[in-house]
Amino acid sequence: MTRTAKFVHQVSRPQGVPTAGNFAFVEAPVPAPGPGTALVENIYLSVDPYMREAMDEGHWELNAPLEGRSIGRVVESRTPGLAVGDLVFHRYAWRTHAVVEPADVRLLRPPAGVPLSTYLSVLGGTGLTAYVGLTKVARVRPGETVFISAAAGGVGSAAGQIARLLGAGRVIGSTGSAAKAKHLTERLGFDAAFDYHDGPVGELLRLAAPEGIDVYFDNVGGEHLEGAIDVLRDSGRIAWCGAVSQYNSTEPPVAPRNLYDVVHKSLRLEGFLVRNHRDAQGELEEFLAPHLRSGRVRAEETVVEGFDHVVEAFLGMLRGENLGKMIVQVSAEAPEEAPGTAKDTVSR
Amino acid sequence: MTRTAKFVHQVSRPQGVPTAGNFAFVEAPVPAPGPGTALVENIYLSVDPYMREAMDEGHWELNAPLEGRSIGRVVESRTPGLAVGDLVFHRYAWRTHAVVEPADVRLLRPPAGVPLSTYLSVLGGTGLTAYVGLTKVARVRPGETVFISAAAGGVGSAAGQIARLLGAGRVIGSTGSAAKAKHLTERLGFDAAFDYHDGPVGELLRLAAPEGIDVYFDNVGGEHLEGAIDVLRDSGRIAWCGAVSQYNSTEPPVAPRNLYDVVHKSLRLEGFLVRNHRDAQGELEEFLAPHLRSGRVRAEETVVEGFDHVVEAFLGMLRGENLGKMIVQVSAEAPEEAPGTAKDTVSR
Repeated sequence: MTRTAKFVHQVSRPQGVPTAGNFAFVEAPVPAPGPGTALVENIYLSVDPYMREAMDEGHWELNAPLEGRSIGRVVESRTPGLAVGDLVFHRYAWRTHAVVEPADVRLLRPPAGVPLSTYLSVLGGTGLTAYVGLTKVARVRPGETVFISAAAGGVGSAAGQIARLLGAGRVIGSTGSAAKAKHLTERLGFDAAFDYHDGPVGELLRLAAPEGIDVYFDNVGGEHLEGAIDVLRDSGRIAWCGAVSQYNSTEPPVAPRNLYDVVHKSLRLEGFLVRNHRDAQGELEEFLAPHLRSGRVRAEETVVEGFDHVVEAFLGMLRGENLGKMIVQVSAEAPEEAPGTAKDTVSR
Repeated sequence: MTRTAKFVHQVSRPQGVPTAGNFAFVEAPVPAPGPGTALVENIYLSVDPYMREAMDEGHWELNAPLEGRSIGRVVESRTPGLAVGDLVFHRYAWRTHAVVEPADVRLLRPPAGVPLSTYLSVLGGTGLTAYVGLTKVARVRPGETVFISAAAGGVGSAAGQIARLLGAGRVIGSTGSAAKAKHLTERLGFDAAFDYHDGPVGELLRLAAPEGIDVYFDNVGGEHLEGAIDVLRDSGRIAWCGAVSQYNSTEPPVAPRNLYDVVHKSLRLEGFLVRNHRDAQGELEEFLAPHLRSGRVRAEETVVEGFDHVVEAFLGMLRGENLGKMIVQVSAEAPEEAPGTAKDTVSR
C-alpha cells in the first residue's frame, strides 16, 4: 500500500506580507527509509516569526522542502539508534513525513504531567529563547522591572512567566489588542499590559512603569525599541531576539532616534540567536518542568489541526492571531488516538 | 599685593559648532582660602569632547565657573589635609586658581619617569576611558581585531596602545587626515589607519580588516557606527563612549540603518561613562606606569601654553587639531621653573 506524504514548498519570495500564493502543497509517496535511517510521521509542527525572514532572498530555497522544528513518531526504522514508537524532535517541518538519521533527532521522553507539544513551546526553541534572553543575555535580577514586547506570543508569554520565576519585581507586556492585554494580566500574571495601538509606545510604557524599567526583552524592534530606550533606567539591558515589526517591511528598518542614550544611560543592547544557546536546553527543562507539572507555568499554545492548515497557521501567526505558541497538529499523539480530539486555543 | 585670578564663563548656548563668542574671560582677585580649605594654582587644564555636550541647555550654567579635570599645586593652605607644594588633581578647571577642600582633590605623586601632565592624558580620565572600554566593556581578548574611531585623539591614541598591550592581534584606527593616519601607523603602532573622508567608513574599514573586526571602540557614532556594524564578526562587541560626530548637530542623530544586524550577528552594543568607573583608576596606573617609564606607551599630548588660549584650545580640539590629548598649561610645573619652557605638540 502506497501512502501519501504531503509537503509545503515556498514557490515565490514574498513582497512585504506573505500570502498563500507564495506556497504550494506538494504530494509524493511516503519515502522508504534506507539503511541507517528511520521514517518519522510528524505529530506537531512549529510555525515561527523567524521563518518570515527565511523566506527572503538568500535563505530558503524555492521549490524545495522547508525547515522548522517538529515533533514526530518513528513508524519504521532501519537503524538501531531509533525504535518504532520513539518520539523525536527534529527540523524537518512543513511536511507530514520525514526520513531521519539518529544524529538528526533528539529523543523525547516527556515526564508525567508535561505535554508532548510543550517541546515546541515552553520547552522548545520558543521557551529557550525566552529563558536565554532573560538569564544569559539580560541577566534579570530579583526585584527588577522587565518589559516584554509581543508579550502574548510564544516567546513573550514564556518570557513573562519566566521573568516572574526569576524574581522580577514587575513584569510589563505590550501586545496588539485590548483582549490580549487583559489575558496577559488576568491569566499570565503580568503586572501591567497595554495595546501598543493606543499611543506612542514610550508613553504607554512610562504609564505602566513610572519609575522606569531595568530590562527590555525585545521581540519587535522599531518604535518599541525606541520607547524602551526612553524608559530604561541607567545600566539597563536590552535582550534583542527579533524585530517582527520589520520582517514584512520592504524599506530599511527604522532605527531608534534616541540610540545615543545607550551611552548617556550606560545601557547594554545585546542581540542573540537561540541556535547559539542550544547547550542551555537541559537547564531549561530542569528549570521549567516542575513548574509545568505544578501548574505555576502555563504552556500557552494555539494548536491548529491538520496539515492542510499549516500555511494559514503561519500567516495567522504573522498577523498575531495566536495566543502563545502557534503549533500545527498533523497527526494524533498516540497511534491509537483518534485524530480530531478536541484541541484548539488552549492553555495547558 | 592682590593677585588676579582668571576664569572662563560660558555666556551663551552654542547653535551647532561653538564659537569664541559663547565664552567670556572674567577676572577677579585671587580668592583667599577659608578654614578647612586650600588655594590651588592650576598648572594643567583638560579640554575634552564631552564638554561640548555640557554646553547645551540643561547642563552647565551660564555665567558661572565651568568644570573640568585639572592639575594644580597648593600655594596656601588652611587645612591639615593639604600642604603647600602638594600636587593635586581636581575638577575646577577653566580658571587659574581654585579654592578646594581635601575631599575635592586627589593627591598626585608621580613616580620617576611619569610626567605630571599624564594624569590628564593616559593616566587621567582619557586613559581611563580607553582602559575601561577595552577591558571592562568590550573585554578584548588576545588575538582579536580592534577598530578605534577618532584614533588620533586623546582617548583613541590611548585605546590603540592599550589594545596592543592587551594582546590585540590587529589594531585599526580611523582619523580625519592622511597625516594623522600616517602618524597612527608610524608612531603609535596601529596596524592600519585611514582618513574617514576617503570614502564610506564601512568600505574603508573592510579594506583594512578583510576578515572583519571583533571589537569597535566608538568615540564617534553616526556613520562610523554603521560601518563598524557592517564589518563586525559574529559575537562582536562595541564599547561606546561618545558620539563626537553628533555633538554639534542641531538635528536628531542618524541611527545606523543596519542596527538589526545586532541580532543577526549576536552583537553587544554597550554604552559607558567613565565617571561610573573611577574605581579602576588604581588598576590603570598600575597597568600603564611601567610601560610609560619604559617608553612602550607614548603619552600623546598636544599642550597649548597660556590660560588666554584655553577657549581656542577647546575649539581646536573640536576641530580635531590636536594629536593625542589636548591640554592647556596655565603655569609652570615647578615654582622655580621659568614659564614658557618649550612645550608644544609633543609625544612624551
